[in-house]
Amino acid sequence: MSGCTDATAESHPMNGGDGTYSYTHNSNFQKSATNVASSMINRAVIDKLELSKLFSFTSSNNTFRIADLGCSIGPNTFIAMQNILEAVQQKYLHSQHQNSSSQMLEFQVFFNDHETNDFNTLFSSLPAKRQYFIAAVPGSFHGRLFPNSSLHFVHSSLALHWLSTIPKELLDRTSPAWNRRRIHYTSAPDEVYKAYQYQFAKDMIKFLDARARELVVGGLMVLIMPAVPNSVPLSHMPLGVVYDLLGCALMDMTREGWISEAQVDSFNLPVYVVSPKEMRELVDGNGCFSIQMMELIKPMSSVHDGQITARAITMHLRAAMEGIITKHFGGDIIDELFNRFYMKIEELSDQLQPRSKEGTQLFLVLERK
Amino acid sequence: MSGCTDATAESHPMNGGDGTYSYTHNSNFQKSATNVASSMINRAVIDKLELSKLFSFTSSNNTFRIADLGCSIGPNTFIAMQNILEAVQQKYLHSQHQNSSSQMLEFQVFFNDHETNDFNTLFSSLPAKRQYFIAAVPGSFHGRLFPNSSLHFVHSSLALHWLSTIPKELLDRTSPAWNRRRIHYTSAPDEVYKAYQYQFAKDMIKFLDARARELVVGGLMVLIMPAVPNSVPLSHMPLGVVYDLLGCALMDMTREGWISEAQVDSFNLPVYVVSPKEMRELVDGNGCFSIQMMELIKPMSSVHDGQITARAITMHLRAAMEGIITKHFGGDIIDELFNRFYMKIEELSDQLQPRSKEGTQLFLVLERK
Repeated sequence: MSGCTDATAESHPMNGGDGTYSYTHNSNFQKSATNVASSMINRAVIDKLELSKLFSFTSSNNTFRIADLGCSIGPNTFIAMQNILEAVQQKYLHSQHQNSSSQMLEFQVFFNDHETNDFNTLFSSLPAKRQYFIAAVPGSFHGRLFPNSSLHFVHSSLALHWLSTIPKELLDRTSPAWNRRRIHYTSAPDEVYKAYQYQFAKDMIKFLDARARELVVGGLMVLIMPAVPNSVPLSHMPLGVVYDLLGCALMDMTREGWISEAQVDSFNLPVYVVSPKEMRELVDGNGCFSIQMMELIKPMSSVHDGQITARAITMHLRAAMEGIITKHFGGDIIDELFNRFYMKIEELSDQLQPRSKEGTQLFLVLERK
Repeated sequence: MSGCTDATAESHPMNGGDGTYSYTHNSNFQKSATNVASSMINRAVIDKLELSKLFSFTSSNNTFRIADLGCSIGPNTFIAMQNILEAVQQKYLHSQHQNSSSQMLEFQVFFNDHETNDFNTLFSSLPAKRQYFIAAVPGSFHGRLFPNSSLHFVHSSLALHWLSTIPKELLDRTSPAWNRRRIHYTSAPDEVYKAYQYQFAKDMIKFLDARARELVVGGLMVLIMPAVPNSVPLSHMPLGVVYDLLGCALMDMTREGWISEAQVDSFNLPVYVVSPKEMRELVDGNGCFSIQMMELIKPMSSVHDGQITARAITMHLRAAMEGIITKHFGGDIIDELFNRFYMKIEELSDQLQPRSKEGTQLFLVLERK
């Protein structure tokens, strides 16, 4: 059962605790994504979930098990789980099974994130009046986390774009993929992009293999992730501009002696932004899932009227990235770095407003065949 | 499904982290209990666990689910879980099912403790090469924690003696159970003892009710708890002497102005030490369990040759009690209090050596009928 131990993936926890720069207080973008996804998840459950495939309603076992993979520390995970639960309950009550069985469904929700995630904060902020049994599962979702056929619904929002590791060639001075003076593949040579893309594919293959074993036949998996439209480079998208400006701010700091250029050369954001076409190929390659829904959605527009402030972008980027930046560069540069980033982003705020008609997040519903 | 939310029980977490006074470094007594219990758990699994009751081995569902209730932060819980897993595996391999199915059992272990337990430390010290899927379940075991019929084995070691709350009458100056100048029922009037006993019974009724719903028919529950032989008062046992001396040390400190007498009057250790006869009555009253094994065991003798040092007692008491004492009296008195306790316990160390032929811990195996 070697598959039960965690993959040796790197972890990139969001800022823990309850402070100014915590993920708890700086996850509104992610929350917007949750809001927009809510109605789509409802639709997926009503249209695509066949409860009769999942349960023999004569048996005593009527537990519906949901997992949120990459849950971070709340509150978004609680909102998402409650939403799924209510959709499934609604479906159950309106289904034919209502009469054939007097048993209510029970729900068990598994909150998953890396072992280094701040689970203590997650547990201290659990909703008091929840309608489900809770469990937390620490470990990398690039490996096995659950027993065979033990889950009915898997949810993962804004987590799968984190790579399990940085491709080695990005750090190799002799490789054409050496990512000099940059911190991401945005605006980088194609070799750098290919290295990222290959790592993402390797990760996603492991992810889909593990979930194929853990989900029951007929179970659904909802994946929400940052995305680019097919054939659009990330540098043309607001997120690409953000990464480029963060890299520029770091390079500026090398010129003033805050950090060395070698430190920037050896730092790469472990994030990949996928296209719908790529995801379809990866899912088809796995073979165990059918694609039930696949759409690019625009999470922001309904909430922010399309306007995102420089301050909000800075705070959110800091909550997400402070951990890995501190690990590489030390904590002393953090305030200076994000001040510089803030000033750059304010100058270019027009470039950061959503222009494309297409969405910036992929909403994907897979059914276990 | 209001039963899914936690009971509003008080929590008494062991000292977290990794420091000098942490539970991690001061849980050898508990570890000794685990060692002694290991061979008894093996026996219980081999003699009492009927796997054919738990699984239809033709189905695809072959996950054996174990819960450790009141797991604290390790390492004892990992040792105990590994031991149970190996015993069940051994039983499985030697059972008739070996030939009738090619499937291996998978194991999922649920680590439970209060929401305030230091789960981050637990997760950071997980065994790397474990043979089971892990999950953590925060919440009080005096309420529901798991879905109906979802567990095959429940284990709880040295946790059930913690009361969910202190009986109100102990704090009521007009009650005959007002526990003046003492911090426990040891050496107290009978009314104080009765109030503790009643609270323990209420807690245990809730505990057994919840587990009866969560354990599958044929599932086993192993409970290990501090105990007194039938009809022996706690004040005649080493643990009673320890509690009395801690109370004396606090009263000494009132006379020197460290704390007020009112503070001592309003403080009571939320711990009850049960007898085998009482536990039998509570289990019979629940009606869902049959008693498969019930023995008083002597956890120390095999490890320490019967000798327990004053320093070891002090360190262990501090790891367990520092949290609740600090909460009531503040942290400033802790060093002084345990220095005084240490000196008292050294004077009386002969009273603390196990004298009775009978054991000081109850080892109980229940089967879900």
